Amino acid sequence: MLQSDNTKKFPLMSLNRFEAFSDGVFAIAVTLLVIEIKAPDLSHTTSSEAVAKLLQVLPHVLSYATSFIVIGVVWINHHALFHFLKRVDRTTLVINLLLLMCVAFIPYPTALIGEYGSSLPVVVFYGLSLAVTGFAYNALWFHVVSRYVKTDKLIPQKIVQKATIWTISYPISYLVAASLAFISINLSIVLYVLIPSFYLLPGIIDKQLMEQV
Amino acid sequence: MLQSDNTKKFPLMSLNRFEAFSDGVFAIAVTLLVIEIKAPDLSHTTSSEAVAKLLQVLPHVLSYATSFIVIGVVWINHHALFHFLKRVDRTTLVINLLLLMCVAFIPYPTALIGEYGSSLPVVVFYGLSLAVTGFAYNALWFHVVSRYVKTDKLIPQKIVQKATIWTISYPISYLVAASLAFISINLSIVLYVLIPSFYLLPGIIDKQLMEQV
Amino acid sequence: MLQSDNTKKFPLMSLNRFEAFSDGVFAIAVTLLVIEIKAPDLSHTTSSEAVAKLLQVLPHVLSYATSFIVIGVVWINHHALFHFLKRVDRTTLVINLLLLMCVAFIPYPTALIGEYGSSLPVVVFYGLSLAVTGFAYNALWFHVVSRYVKTDKLIPQKIVQKATIWTISYPISYLVAASLAFISINLSIVLYVLIPSFYLLPGIIDKQLMEQV
Amino acid sequence: MLQSDNTKKFPLMSLNRFEAFSDGVFAIAVTLLVIEIKAPDLSHTTSSEAVAKLLQVLPHVLSYATSFIVIGVVWINHHALFHFLKRVDRTTLVINLLLLMCVAFIPYPTALIGEYGSSLPVVVFYGLSLAVTGFAYNALWFHVVSRYVKTDKLIPQKIVQKATIWTISYPISYLVAASLAFISINLSIVLYVLIPSFYLLPGIIDKQLMEQV
Repeated sequence: MLQSDNTKKFPLMSLNRFEAFSDGVFAIAVTLLVIEIKAPDLSHTTSSEAVAKLLQVLPHVLSYATSFIVIGVVWINHHALFHFLKRVDRTTLVINLLLLMCVAFIPYPTALIGEYGSSLPVVVFYGLSLAVTGFAYNALWFHVVSRYVKTDKLIPQKIVQKATIWTISYPISYLVAASLAFISINLSIVLYVLIPSFYLLPGIIDKQLMEQV
Repeated sequence: MLQSDNTKKFPLMSLNRFEAFSDGVFAIAVTLLVIEIKAPDLSHTTSSEAVAKLLQVLPHVLSYATSFIVIGVVWINHHALFHFLKRVDRTTLVINLLLLMCVAFIPYPTALIGEYGSSLPVVVFYGLSLAVTGFAYNALWFHVVSRYVKTDKLIPQKIVQKATIWTISYPISYLVAASLAFISINLSIVLYVLIPSFYLLPGIIDKQLMEQV
Repeated sequence: MLQSDNTKKFPLMSLNRFEAFSDGVFAIAVTLLVIEIKAPDLSHTTSSEAVAKLLQVLPHVLSYATSFIVIGVVWINHHALFHFLKRVDRTTLVINLLLLMCVAFIPYPTALIGEYGSSLPVVVFYGLSLAVTGFAYNALWFHVVSRYVKTDKLIPQKIVQKATIWTISYPISYLVAASLAFISINLSIVLYVLIPSFYLLPGIIDKQLMEQV
Repeated sequence: MLQSDNTKKFPLMSLNRFEAFSDGVFAIAVTLLVIEIKAPDLSHTTSSEAVAKLLQVLPHVLSYATSFIVIGVVWINHHALFHFLKRVDRTTLVINLLLLMCVAFIPYPTALIGEYGSSLPVVVFYGLSLAVTGFAYNALWFHVVSRYVKTDKLIPQKIVQKATIWTISYPISYLVAASLAFISINLSIVLYVLIPSFYLLPGIIDKQLMEQV
C-alpha cells in the first residue's frame, strides 16, 4: 500500500493512534458533560420538595442530552471520513487537534446553558461554540477531501459535492439558530435540539458506504 | 467477508472504532464515579472524630461500588453481544449512542443516592435511571438480534429466546426494586446491590460462547 | 489457536476489549488524580505570599506523584500478566472488575492524604486502600496462574513461585506500612513513597519475558 | 521480527497497550483542561453584564487553548518517536510513566494561570511545569535513541543529531520564557502561546518519515 509513487510526498502517520487519541477525546468530552450537573441540596426537604428540586435539574439533563448527541454526531462523521483513509499528514493532525479542542470545550457552554438557559448571551454563546466546532470539522473535511479523496478518487465527484453541501450546512444552521435567539430564545433552544437529531439520520457518506460495499 | 450478497444492504462501519468509543465511555463513566465522593472536612478533629467522619462516607462508597458493578455488567454484556458481529449499521450506532448517554449519566443519580440515601424520590430516581439504561440496552439487543443474529443465524433460535428473557428481566427488576421503595427504602437499596451482582454470574450468551468455541 | 481440546471448557472473550477497557480505567484513574489538587486563593496576595501558598500545595503534589506511580505499577504488572494469555474467562472478567474498582477509588484516599497528611486515620486509610488494591491484584494473579499459566505451562513452575512471593509481598508491605503509622506517621508516608518506587524496578516476570524472547 | 539475536537482551512489551495507555492519558489530560474553567455567576444580571462576565472568562479560554496545544505537541512527538519501534523495555516504561505524570499534571498550572495570570509566581510556575514536562520528554528521547534507534540504525545519525537539538531546545525555550517573566509577565505569556504553535510545524522526524516512506 506504500509502494505507489505519490505516497512519497505524504508522510504516513499510523491511523491507529490518530483514531485512538481522537476517540479518547470524543469519549471523555461526552462523559464529562455529566459532571456539570450539580446535585441539588435536598437536606431537610420533604419528598414533594425533593421531587420539585429534582425536576429543576431537567434543563441540565436536556442540555446534557443535546450536547451528547452533538458530539456523537461529530464522532460518527469523523469516523465515516477517516474510514476511507490509510494515512494522515501533519496538516490533518493539526486541524484535527483544533477540532478536538473545540469538541473538548463543549462541556463549558453546556454547563452554562443548563444553568442560565434564559440568558440571551449564554444561548448565543452555546450556538456559536457549536458553530465554531462545525467550522473546524469543515476545515478537516475540505483538507481531507482535497488531499486524499480527490487525489485517490476514493469517492465519485458527485457524491463529494453533495456531502460538502451537507457538511457546510451544519455550522451554518447553528449560526442561524444562534442569531434567532435575538427574536426568541426558546426558538433557538428548540433548533439546538433538532439540528443534531436531524444529523443522526443516515448521511450522504453513509449511503455511499452502503453502495460501495 | 464482504463478498456475500446480503452485506450490500448493510453499510459497514468498522467495529474497531465503534468498540473503542464505547469502551472509552464505559471506562470513563465508571472512573468518574469516584469524583462524586467528597472529602469530609477533617481540620481540627481528633483521631476518633476523623474516623467517625470517614465512616460517614460509607454510603458513598457503597453507591460507588454498586454503580461500578452496574456499568461493568452492561459493559460485559455489550462485549458479549458485539463479539458475534463484524459490521455495524447506522441504526446500531444511534441506539448505542443513546445507551452510552444513559451509562454516562449514571454518576449523577449515584452521587445523589450516596448523599441522600434516605430520600424516597432519590431512591426511586436511582432505580429509574438504571431501568432506563437497561431498556436502552434492550433496544440495542432487539435491533442487533433481528438485524444480524437472526439473519446470519449466528446463535441457535432457542438460545436467543432464553437470552432475550434474561435481557428483558434486567430493567424490569430495577422497575420492581424502584417501586418497592414506596414500601421500604432499605429493601430497594438491598435489591439495587443484589441485581447487578446476580448478573455478574455467567449469562446465557456466555454459555453459548463456551459451547461454540 | 482454538483447535486444542481444552480450550472448549474456557469461554473466550476477546483480550482486545478486555485490555482496552482496563487500560482506559487505569489511564483515567491516573489522570483524575490532578483534579483533587485544589488551586489556592491567590487574590490580593504579594508575590512572596503567593509563593508561600503555592509551596503549601507540595503535599498534594507528593500524594499525586505517589498514587500515580502506585497505579502505574499495577498497570505494568497487569500488562505483563496478560501478555501471556490469549483468552479470558468470566471469572477473570469479574475479578478484574473488582481490581479496577479499587484502582478507580484511589483518587479519593489520595485527595484525603494530600489534605490531611498529619491525620492518623487518613494515613492508615490510604495504606489500607492500597493494600486492598494489592490483594485484588493477588486474586487476579492466583486465578490467572491456576487457570491458564499452570494448565498451559506458559512459565516454568519455579518462576511462578518466585513471582507469587513477589506479588503477595506487595499488599503485605502496605499493611505493614499502614500499621507503622501508629508509631510514626512520617515513617508510613516515607514507606508509601518507597514501596511503589521499589516495584518500578524490573520484576521477576519481566526477567522471564527477557529470557524467553 | 523476534528471531534476530540482539532482541534477546531487550524484554519485549507489546507496544499496543503501551500506546493505548499513553494515548489515554494524553486524551484525558487534554479534555480535563475544560473542567478548570468555572462558570461565572450570571444570576440577576442584565444581558450586557452577562456578556461582560463571559468575556472575563477569556484568559481561561486562552490558557485552555495553549495547554491543549502543548499537550497535543507532546502527543504528536511521542507518536512519531514510537512509530519506529517494535518493542519497549522496562526503562522506557518507567521514563514514559514519569512523562505522563508531568503531562497529567498540566491542568493544574493551567487552572492557576487562567485565574491568576498577572501573578509572577504563577506565570513562572506554569513555564517551569512545561519545562519539566519537556525535560521528561528529553529523557525518553535520549533513552529510546541510544537503546533502539542507534542500535538498529533506524534513522541516519545526521538526522538524529538535528532532531536532538530540536528536542533539547523545547524545554530550554520554556525556561527562557519563564525567566523573562521577571522582566515582563506579558512577554512570557506571549512566548508560552508561540512556542507550542511553532512546534506544530512539521518537525525533523516528520521530514525523515516523509523521505523514508
